[in-house]
Amino acid sequence: MSTLAALRARLAELNDLRLLGHLAAWDQRTMMPPGGGPERGEQLATLERISHERATGEDLGAWLAELEGADLGDVDRDLVRIARRDYDRQTRVPTELAAELAQAAAAGQDAWEVARAADDFPSFAPVLERNVELARAYAACFDGYASPYDALLADYDFGLTSARIEEVFGELGRALPPLVAERAALPAPRALDVPIAAQEVAVTGVLRRFGVDPASWRIDVSSHPFSTNIGLRDSRITTRYQDGQLESVLAAMHEFGHALYDRQVGPELARTPLADGTSMSVHESQSKLWENHVGRHAAFSGVIAQELTDAGFAVAAEDVHATINAVRPSLIRVSADEVTYPLHIVLRFELERALVDGDLAVADLPVAWNDGMRRLLGVEVPSAAEGVLQDVHWAGLAFGYFPSYALGCLIAAQLWEALEADLGPRDEALSTGDVAAIREWLRERVHRHGRRLDTVPVVEHATGRGLDAGPFLRHVARTAAAPAR
Amino acid sequence: MSTLAALRARLAELNDLRLLGHLAAWDQRTMMPPGGGPERGEQLATLERISHERATGEDLGAWLAELEGADLGDVDRDLVRIARRDYDRQTRVPTELAAELAQAAAAGQDAWEVARAADDFPSFAPVLERNVELARAYAACFDGYASPYDALLADYDFGLTSARIEEVFGELGRALPPLVAERAALPAPRALDVPIAAQEVAVTGVLRRFGVDPASWRIDVSSHPFSTNIGLRDSRITTRYQDGQLESVLAAMHEFGHALYDRQVGPELARTPLADGTSMSVHESQSKLWENHVGRHAAFSGVIAQELTDAGFAVAAEDVHATINAVRPSLIRVSADEVTYPLHIVLRFELERALVDGDLAVADLPVAWNDGMRRLLGVEVPSAAEGVLQDVHWAGLAFGYFPSYALGCLIAAQLWEALEADLGPRDEALSTGDVAAIREWLRERVHRHGRRLDTVPVVEHATGRGLDAGPFLRHVARTAAAPAR
Repeated sequence: MSTLAALRARLAELNDLRLLGHLAAWDQRTMMPPGGGPERGEQLATLERISHERATGEDLGAWLAELEGADLGDVDRDLVRIARRDYDRQTRVPTELAAELAQAAAAGQDAWEVARAADDFPSFAPVLERNVELARAYAACFDGYASPYDALLADYDFGLTSARIEEVFGELGRALPPLVAERAALPAPRALDVPIAAQEVAVTGVLRRFGVDPASWRIDVSSHPFSTNIGLRDSRITTRYQDGQLESVLAAMHEFGHALYDRQVGPELARTPLADGTSMSVHESQSKLWENHVGRHAAFSGVIAQELTDAGFAVAAEDVHATINAVRPSLIRVSADEVTYPLHIVLRFELERALVDGDLAVADLPVAWNDGMRRLLGVEVPSAAEGVLQDVHWAGLAFGYFPSYALGCLIAAQLWEALEADLGPRDEALSTGDVAAIREWLRERVHRHGRRLDTVPVVEHATGRGLDAGPFLRHVARTAAAPAR
Repeated sequence: MSTLAALRARLAELNDLRLLGHLAAWDQRTMMPPGGGPERGEQLATLERISHERATGEDLGAWLAELEGADLGDVDRDLVRIARRDYDRQTRVPTELAAELAQAAAAGQDAWEVARAADDFPSFAPVLERNVELARAYAACFDGYASPYDALLADYDFGLTSARIEEVFGELGRALPPLVAERAALPAPRALDVPIAAQEVAVTGVLRRFGVDPASWRIDVSSHPFSTNIGLRDSRITTRYQDGQLESVLAAMHEFGHALYDRQVGPELARTPLADGTSMSVHESQSKLWENHVGRHAAFSGVIAQELTDAGFAVAAEDVHATINAVRPSLIRVSADEVTYPLHIVLRFELERALVDGDLAVADLPVAWNDGMRRLLGVEVPSAAEGVLQDVHWAGLAFGYFPSYALGCLIAAQLWEALEADLGPRDEALSTGDVAAIREWLRERVHRHGRRLDTVPVVEHATGRGLDAGPFLRHVARTAAAPAR
């Protein structure tokens, strides 16, 4: 077997194991009886251990070294480049540290559950201090980054720097608060009490218009909506239903965006590490594009209203649009609206960067949190549970993850502007629920490249520009002005 | 790490991979969108390859050699004994032959699908000839068996010989045909047109009485009913619904029996190869016990009737009992009744043994099949599709598997006699659907031992006797005589 064939065989195997991990995780969240939990944990740990062993073998390192000098085609050159990056990221972390990180992440999440339920930050502080220390030890495994935090960012968005994020988020921090104040002063839309049965019909109906069919998709329910791919022709999304709301429909569109990205990766990349979304922020841009730019589009409100009306819940497009575009500053990130959402992220970025880079002590975190909420969103935080303890990320050692949520909103808006510049305004197509051209544009400009292009290169490739907050700010200003038709 | 700890860690890992394989297979048959099929095949092949590699490593062989001389506790001694057996079964087969067998099994099943659909045995004959050859080559990898067929049997029922099976099946071949003739002469029971909705309620209701609860069980639908365990507290069974029938209820009870065996293995055996059913025939005895001795029991017909009546389909216990105990000779094994079923197996055993041991040519198989059906069941076979081509087993190289289906019926009857001798007749408890004592008796006598006792030893342990056709023959004679109460 040639060296390239050996490399490809190993990478295909790692890809299969990754997808089996997706299946085991999907099942755990949708189908598994609760009694299966402890053993599922063992099964996932075994899968992870075996994958890690085969992803860090000396044989793999030797193949990569040999192929880095070889004359390869375009795809294989990128394959070797990305495989080398993954190999280095994994082999530079000493085994003992990797084990400590995994343990601390699991224990941290348990401690967080308890602390949040008890609204007790002080009990959680020592855990968080240790996590920050471990995150710094992890960051120290890698060379060439301007700061520890930048080294962590590379796990989620390779090539992005905190300096650049700071610039972009600075614009959001300046431009959004006045817009939020203005929008929040508008009268609240009248409540739509959409029964769950009608929501279910609307979710299925909207997704069917997007091309979701039972031949290669599943739609299920889970307590937190998510999407996963278990193959290019096996996409699974979930949503959740709450009586009287429309979050189920937006969440389904959001998860559709993630899933579509996974399944429109170029087939020539199948069973390689290139057959995956390139970064957390580009992944999030795909979900946000379908949620914010399709789902919240004034023209598309008519489609949602039609689905609900057909399901027996008669409603006007205007009311749907007003409900899903209402802006209200609030305490909790996951239930924030489109406009306030990025501000929740700006705060988390500032704080986690300062924690990791040594500019903020854990003891000072709650006050910094509450000050930030007042400054960015104008709200008073009444409790740690509704403040600094609301998210699991830091408990689980996912420092560097938060920025991708807001970057996703920005990139989605950049892509949408470029898409409308190419295809013309989508109003007419969206008023009939026709998204075929959007799917194809995204496939061509973003999806098919998989991991061959990193975050900024793929944005440049698709839009002709680098990261830019302008399109998002224009989008939210426009939505504020445009009533539904 | 001690050698024993190293062995246990490897075996735990292999157990986790086995359960992940169960999950992937379960998902494939119940949840997976059809588009996922090809990639699922790759994922399962990767899982199988990695498991095989780790199950046949030289390190594992060295640990076993070292531990075979060590002073170990009872469980560890059995662990080493069974791990050695598995290791030898896997390492004695040359890699090339193993690959050829896997390929031939896959290709054989494809060829069989086509041939059966076209009712064309001659097109399938060369495939079957090659499979017989490969089965003989596989059997030749193992020493110490009286015949090639006996070497194959060991994969399904270690310790059983074809000579003993021949004796037991000989009794069935003599005793059952007259009984079948007598029962078949009775008037057919009146058809019960049970709607699917009522069947669903009955399936859920009956299983709830057996202890199936959503905390650690799932009940789903698949085109062929099956059961699997993904952990001791994650049992999954399926059934299928056809309008107007009660097969769904019996199939659910059958699969419950398999699943209960898997989950009542002693917890001290968890994550070892001992934590599994000991053989195909003992596994089948567990499903048959719940199907034939609980489900078809006259006293239990009242419970099924009650569930159906509560679901809005009013029916008398007598009618349920008559329907699920009707006896009619027929062509197709999978839809055969309790009394004729073992005769279908006797025929297959005779034929596959003769094929593998070189006493029957593939070209002569259809005539031998049709002669056997006339002799054992008194039916004329109108086509290969309804005759020799009806089962996939030989196409998939599963020679030696068939006997376990009938042995399961016999062992179930043996266990039931022993159970009633210990606990007293079950009529009263079953009339209220109370099976707690049955579950416990099976746990104590059969389940908890896992693979520590092989087929005949576990039967002896539970009943005080070896394999014996007597209890089954008494059971079917009694059922014929007993009307429902």
